[in-house]
Amino acid sequence: MSSDRQAVTVIGLGSMGSALAAAFLDRGHPTTVWNRSAARARPLAERGARLAATPEEAVAASPLTVACVLDYDALYGVLDPAAAALAGRTLVNLSSGSPEQAHEAVAWARSRGAGYLDGAIMTTPPGVGSPEVMFLYSGPHAVFEAHRETLAALGDPLHLGADPGLASLYDAALLGLMWSTLTGWLHGTALVGAEKTPATEFTPIAIRWLGTVNRFLTAYAPQVDAGRYPGDDATVDVQIAAIDHLIHAAEARGLDNALPELLKATMERARATGHGGDSYASVIEVLRNPAGER
Amino acid sequence: MSSDRQAVTVIGLGSMGSALAAAFLDRGHPTTVWNRSAARARPLAERGARLAATPEEAVAASPLTVACVLDYDALYGVLDPAAAALAGRTLVNLSSGSPEQAHEAVAWARSRGAGYLDGAIMTTPPGVGSPEVMFLYSGPHAVFEAHRETLAALGDPLHLGADPGLASLYDAALLGLMWSTLTGWLHGTALVGAEKTPATEFTPIAIRWLGTVNRFLTAYAPQVDAGRYPGDDATVDVQIAAIDHLIHAAEARGLDNALPELLKATMERARATGHGGDSYASVIEVLRNPAGER
Ligand SMILES: NC(=O)c1ccc[n+]([C@@H]2O[C@H](COP(=O)([O-])OP(=O)(O)OC[C@H]3O[C@@H](n4cnc5c(N)ncnc54)[C@H](OP(=O)(O)O)[C@@H]3O)[C@@H](O)[C@H]2O)c1
Ligand SMILES: NC(=O)c1ccc[n+]([C@@H]2O[C@H](COP(=O)([O-])OP(=O)(O)OC[C@H]3O[C@@H](n4cnc5c(N)ncnc54)[C@H](OP(=O)(O)O)[C@@H]3O)[C@@H](O)[C@H]2O)c1
Repeated sequence: MSSDRQAVTVIGLGSMGSALAAAFLDRGHPTTVWNRSAARARPLAERGARLAATPEEAVAASPLTVACVLDYDALYGVLDPAAAALAGRTLVNLSSGSPEQAHEAVAWARSRGAGYLDGAIMTTPPGVGSPEVMFLYSGPHAVFEAHRETLAALGDPLHLGADPGLASLYDAALLGLMWSTLTGWLHGTALVGAEKTPATEFTPIAIRWLGTVNRFLTAYAPQVDAGRYPGDDATVDVQIAAIDHLIHAAEARGLDNALPELLKATMERARATGHGGDSYASVIEVLRNPAGER
Repeated sequence: MSSDRQAVTVIGLGSMGSALAAAFLDRGHPTTVWNRSAARARPLAERGARLAATPEEAVAASPLTVACVLDYDALYGVLDPAAAALAGRTLVNLSSGSPEQAHEAVAWARSRGAGYLDGAIMTTPPGVGSPEVMFLYSGPHAVFEAHRETLAALGDPLHLGADPGLASLYDAALLGLMWSTLTGWLHGTALVGAEKTPATEFTPIAIRWLGTVNRFLTAYAPQVDAGRYPGDDATVDVQIAAIDHLIHAAEARGLDNALPELLKATMERARATGHGGDSYASVIEVLRNPAGER
């Protein structure tokens, strides 16, 4: 193991924190760890991690501390007693939270003389360490640049901007996309499954189709930015006609149709506000304008 | 133009039918076309298509007729008078419809002595002719094999099985996935857009993230087939906690939250039926079991 790697501390050794610490160890970073329940540190100690007796000792061991605990309450609970050690060091918080919580944490860190980056982990623990996986960071550019190389041990580090709330905001937006996609996929899987098509047969086709859908996203993004949604390829009117086939087919097979019904109602609101001849991207106007507040 | 290509007829020259005929012409297939409004055939005639005066003459010109009109009513309206010519020939119907309509069409074609395949086009017109794009077919394997090479002019032809309803069923399932994904993406785009992030900046990250989501689909598909959903990576309970960050962040920015609220309610139904510790794939149990019918 090369010892020219930056020393790093990991606080919080749940399933995610343990994966983070393991990734640092794998890349040869001298790694100090601490967890509320000490037992969870043992497997990492066997892989070469140094165990700290207190959060303060842990923070003092490295210029960079990465924290990954349940939430911000847990973060402050652990790090408030270690505040003295944080001065002149950097804290990267990978615990999940809201943009507002990230802003509070910046103020908290600043008053303790610490550099602060907020982050979001766009994978589950088994994906940590893979260079394809995105880790999103927000906060001062200089702080990010100072630690980029170390953070690259965890995955591909992307800096979203100086506003510390951006990582949480993107995280929420991307998770929303994930739940929508997962639920749409499960609904489709249930639909073809009703005719005995296994999920493992449908899914490769669904994934290929998502490749085509990606091309729609790429085409629609500049429409959103321009606020103009030419319906050259397929209009909201055409989609409304087509979604009835889905609703009927799913109804005939006894499925829960709340999702397609909501999607249809959303499209119908787009049509009602004059977007029937526009592309699906025009639906963003509806999403920006809650129902009943037109 | 090589003349060893199979002759083919295209009926219906709307934006999609015109793209189909153009793709056949581009690959050197002798192509005969017919459309209710004759004017739409003109650009194709300039590219070398033969214009038929009636649907019957069009069908008689080729062993294979590809129809792409608005719906099944239009299909029967056009082809009923041409029934005699269909005998001994093959009809591939690419007009959208339901699985039930595909079954009816098989009976209709059989009684006229015609081979029949049902199909679904998984692209918009500009994608026609590209080998990455999927064209889904269902119906007798032998009929598909006899015309596979010709159909490959349109895109990658996939045969889903002998049940003629499968192409429509997959089409509905895949479009449902598309609307879910598009709407989730638009909601996320509106969320980050509220903090001045352009859609064109968010979208490449969203697309990269969908690559990770694809890996979740691949991991979850065998869970669905097995009816067991081990929550090793992320449980429904964890997702429910996380979706509140999205709902709050979106609410604070004035967005319509009907979609994330529905997703949360769906997850909560999964938890209420004992899947809190299971993976997100367990949500399929809720979708198979409409609300209020537990
Ligand atoms: N798992 C994922 O796929 C994933 C993905 C992206 C982001 N995240 C985020 O990563 C963070 C950790 O998730 P995880 O999956 O590692 O969860 P986990 O396995 O449940 O671990 C939770 C960690 O937080 C600690 N903790 C909880 N309450 C605490 C408190 N009051 N004081 C001190 N420590 C406390 C736990 O310590 P003990 O061991 O002592 O209980 C443990 O180290 C969460 O914010 C989560 O949203 C997770
Ligand atoms: N566009 C897409 O992205 C897309 C993608 C996948 C599937 N599809 C499906 O492809 C089919 C055609 O779509 P399109 O986009 O080409 O629509 P379109 O541009 O509106 O064209 C509709 C076609 O149907 C014909 N038609 C309508 N009613 C008719 C009737 N009663 N009798 C005879 N012909 C009639 C029209 O003839 P006239 O020219 O005389 O009106 C025209 O040829 C639809 O089922 C659609 O769902 C389209």
